Amino acid sequence: MRIRLLPIILLSCTGMLSTESSAKMPFDPAEHAVFETTRQDGRYVSSRAIVHNLMDGRKPRLRYSSGMDSLQFAAWQDEVSRAMERLMRHPYMTDTDIKSPTLTARYSRDGYTVERWEAYPLSGAVVPYLVLVPDGVDADNPVPAILCIPGFGQTKELLCGESSIDLDSSVVDPGRNSMAYHYVKEGYIAVAVDNPGCGEPCDLENMAGSGRADYVTLSRALLELGWSYLGYTSYVDRHILEWMKTQPSMRADRLVVSGFSLGTEPLMALGAMDRDIYAFVYNDFLCTTRERALVMTMPDNNGMRPWPNDISHLIPEFLCEFDFPDIVASLAPRPLICTEGGLDRDFDLVRSAYSMAGEADAFTAYHYTKFADKADREPVDSMPAGIDRSTFFRLANVDPPNHYFKAEHVLPWLRALFKDDK
Amino acid sequence: MRIRLLPIILLSCTGMLSTESSAKMPFDPAEHAVFETTRQDGRYVSSRAIVHNLMDGRKPRLRYSSGMDSLQFAAWQDEVSRAMERLMRHPYMTDTDIKSPTLTARYSRDGYTVERWEAYPLSGAVVPYLVLVPDGVDADNPVPAILCIPGFGQTKELLCGESSIDLDSSVVDPGRNSMAYHYVKEGYIAVAVDNPGCGEPCDLENMAGSGRADYVTLSRALLELGWSYLGYTSYVDRHILEWMKTQPSMRADRLVVSGFSLGTEPLMALGAMDRDIYAFVYNDFLCTTRERALVMTMPDNNGMRPWPNDISHLIPEFLCEFDFPDIVASLAPRPLICTEGGLDRDFDLVRSAYSMAGEADAFTAYHYTKFADKADREPVDSMPAGIDRSTFFRLANVDPPNHYFKAEHVLPWLRALFKDDK
Repeated sequence: MRIRLLPIILLSCTGMLSTESSAKMPFDPAEHAVFETTRQDGRYVSSRAIVHNLMDGRKPRLRYSSGMDSLQFAAWQDEVSRAMERLMRHPYMTDTDIKSPTLTARYSRDGYTVERWEAYPLSGAVVPYLVLVPDGVDADNPVPAILCIPGFGQTKELLCGESSIDLDSSVVDPGRNSMAYHYVKEGYIAVAVDNPGCGEPCDLENMAGSGRADYVTLSRALLELGWSYLGYTSYVDRHILEWMKTQPSMRADRLVVSGFSLGTEPLMALGAMDRDIYAFVYNDFLCTTRERALVMTMPDNNGMRPWPNDISHLIPEFLCEFDFPDIVASLAPRPLICTEGGLDRDFDLVRSAYSMAGEADAFTAYHYTKFADKADREPVDSMPAGIDRSTFFRLANVDPPNHYFKAEHVLPWLRALFKDDK
Repeated sequence: MRIRLLPIILLSCTGMLSTESSAKMPFDPAEHAVFETTRQDGRYVSSRAIVHNLMDGRKPRLRYSSGMDSLQFAAWQDEVSRAMERLMRHPYMTDTDIKSPTLTARYSRDGYTVERWEAYPLSGAVVPYLVLVPDGVDADNPVPAILCIPGFGQTKELLCGESSIDLDSSVVDPGRNSMAYHYVKEGYIAVAVDNPGCGEPCDLENMAGSGRADYVTLSRALLELGWSYLGYTSYVDRHILEWMKTQPSMRADRLVVSGFSLGTEPLMALGAMDRDIYAFVYNDFLCTTRERALVMTMPDNNGMRPWPNDISHLIPEFLCEFDFPDIVASLAPRPLICTEGGLDRDFDLVRSAYSMAGEADAFTAYHYTKFADKADREPVDSMPAGIDRSTFFRLANVDPPNHYFKAEHVLPWLRALFKDDK
């Protein structure tokens, strides 16, 4: 325990600044963008450098490699699925632990109904979610159903175009990020969830009017238990997905998972674990999260190198098993659209998996408009070490200001996908 | 991935502030100090509350309970040891992976010699440490040796009273926190290590002159690998402790581990794993870290509840096995001194283990002077929920401004312990 931070830091200054390596000339971060050692034996003294090299040397066990045949691919796919089940650490719940979701409210909207449901995936817990049902859809006229998982800071109400958790009124112009609203208007059932800790399931942040949700402390509590934010999120989302399979108005054989930004992480986890999911809408750039952590080593003026994200993205040993494109490749041959680019290298990887599976057309990928022309994209085979966040985004063909739900790509893709199903 | 933090936070404001539970009146943190639900069914909507209840309900598997007989105690002690080995996840290294430590420099000081050594516990890594040897001590005249582990922000040079990592001069008045210096002046060999990421093994912080060490990003990198800051620290310290056992000038049967503040964590880990350690100097208050995380739930004005420490203290599932006093109790009957108080409740627990082991006198505990009189200590059986950091410290009888190495208690205790050994 440290119980006296500041005074001890002062001590540490004395202890640290008096070292030979102390600042003699202005510190230039760019000169130290990558880990280097000046020792003859090539060993590192820096603990951070030592651990960086450990991580760099520990190649993911389950990389997808082009050239697998269909048998090898199926075996690898099973391994990815088992690894994801192990990493997500979902608790085993019996029917006596949990009860089925209940409908708590229903309101009519323009062309559809919004229903408020509650799930009870853990004893002592309630997880509210919203269901948008197009008029005329029922057990006799079932339609594809889409599980909508929001991005960081977004709420299920935002996705549905509702103005409050009480559903007292809908928003006049829901806006481009209201994923679920766009889907119900297309005639699909949309099931919208919150991400844990944000929106209705936040703790006191809404009441305090802070406008910020504390994902980090929630994640810390989960990690202390050996669980993780993604493990908890995917458990709750899976519980609701299982419920969707039992709803007569939803086509159990036409279930889609649609994730925006942060929501693409549970999308990947569910996709790897659940073969019943029919298709996927991946609305973010296809990030190589492991590579990103290894190359984003440009220090700040205090000599501190960043980590790309906070601990809500930490799943111990996750990146020792696979990087994100491997998981996405393991979804083949199920229909998948990626809407916000990434590296051509990574799309080629995913594409090769779909081709091998004999369903090349089942994978659709769009780049940001800014990088739609191949000539505007950097031909990157491997990310250079020692870069900062903005350089990573540039090389990954990411246009942050235009990160939004790409209805213009997704809706036509779904129409084509379901043209014979409605 | 979230690639557009601020704009999405704005979205989230819209999404969140428009909820029914939004701030209508000023938010009073004290009114929400503990987790409560207003639901009839007693279930919680708050993810943080749900996970808090999961952690609260998951009692540590290996609590020490007074009333064990010696056979039960021995069996429990083995379980604690096995659990610690599992949690620390030390890599298995063969002699071909690593080489023995080497002496790289030696300087004469007033009444002793300071030696600079390098250990190579991992391929590609070097871990420097210092050894203070009293004049006249050698293979023919071995003495007890003490492994000194510093606190947060402290360096091995600070512990040794050296002015720089090059040992170009010693400090005139080393000060009260120079643990190793105090020990060598008493005639013991003192082995001083850095904590990973701080002092010489820091990354670029010294070079940048920031005066701060980044423990957190280092810890994050370790956690990604399924390791932890304490796992890495205890691995490096154990490697050096094993080397100490082979040094003819050190009494292998009289090895002591002395930890200050943060350094008490590797002390507990090593103590549980290594039965060869003869005695322990625990220089901090005896904290109930699990209980602390559960009771420190007083939110701030943004409605965010704190976590007591950063992720350099996170070892997934550690607190599902034991709380700190249980580990300390498992050290019985080996000589142990705790120098900075805590709850009488916890000292009574440790004392009962020592009594059961028939060595009640082997455990010595001092409170901070401010709380030396029992009348000045709160009689706390269990910490009340909903408190903040300062209240926790007050109830735990902690006097933060007086957190320093208690030579006045430790040195006489060691003299009595080794009166027949020198």
